[in-house]
Amino acid sequence: MSSPDRKDVLTPVTDAMRTLAAGLLSQSRHGYLAVLDPEDGWPQASRVALGSTQDGVPLILISRLSAHFAALEADPRCCLLVGEPGKGDPLAHARISMDCTARQAPHEDRAGLRARFVAWQPKAALYVDFADFAFWYLQPQRARLNAGFGKASALDRDELLLILQQVAALP
Amino acid sequence: MSSPDRKDVLTPVTDAMRTLAAGLLSQSRHGYLAVLDPEDGWPQASRVALGSTQDGVPLILISRLSAHFAALEADPRCCLLVGEPGKGDPLAHARISMDCTARQAPHEDRAGLRARFVAWQPKAALYVDFADFAFWYLQPQRARLNAGFGKASALDRDELLLILQQVAALP
Repeated sequence: MSSPDRKDVLTPVTDAMRTLAAGLLSQSRHGYLAVLDPEDGWPQASRVALGSTQDGVPLILISRLSAHFAALEADPRCCLLVGEPGKGDPLAHARISMDCTARQAPHEDRAGLRARFVAWQPKAALYVDFADFAFWYLQPQRARLNAGFGKASALDRDELLLILQQVAALP
Repeated sequence: MSSPDRKDVLTPVTDAMRTLAAGLLSQSRHGYLAVLDPEDGWPQASRVALGSTQDGVPLILISRLSAHFAALEADPRCCLLVGEPGKGDPLAHARISMDCTARQAPHEDRAGLRARFVAWQPKAALYVDFADFAFWYLQPQRARLNAGFGKASALDRDELLLILQQVAALP
């Protein structure tokens, strides 16, 4: 990971990159979550429905019956990728991949999170109140933003906090 | 992972599920790859352009300058998710998540893989011959197929081999 070649290909974070990241985070209704299998540590990928807190922190609603719920209970380290490809080369389209620590939302947060999440994901009304479902916060720690070939930046935690503020300020 | 509750929600693999899985694998031009960060073991997610071998084995073309290249060199365990959501609930749309072992394709395989991959991903012609790019086989070992709520199946290696044969037989 520390090869000088790799770091040479990263570009500085610009305002345009920050706005791009905030746009990806605020517009996405799903993302891809990487977690660690609690039995053997194998990396696991799943699709998750995505919301956000009023502070712009990514929020997921997952079932205790899912593999990723057990994985996050055992190890809260995860990675959330958001951004969808369009036509042509799938790698030419922007995405952000955020290393996050997951934390199950406490009961007292539930009513507020439920209202926000269902407003953003109306179909979630069908299962949000099932006993096995719970909200989890995904607190971003560091990220890679990739806006296409030759346009990749590393974002540290402070940079991410600014971007989450931008997400929270969007209408 | 061994909670009886979780296994209870899995459904048996049917021919329709096999056909669904083969369809996802044969039609996808990109997927999401989970790997392990070689420095700290954090799970990582990235979008990858996807092809397949004539045997139906998933194939990726990745740059030595990417984080996932270094990760796969250090630990070949990875997970490939394919399947795109459509309208409505993102979780209602089918996806397959395959635990794979990655192996860099040897030089003698390159010409054949290049021809197949570029036919499927024409834009890859722009970078396929760059010195830092290489093909990797992703050999599926086990998988979870999720066709929407209440329609999840576990697929073992033998089941996956049958599905890859079905992919290979498609026109």
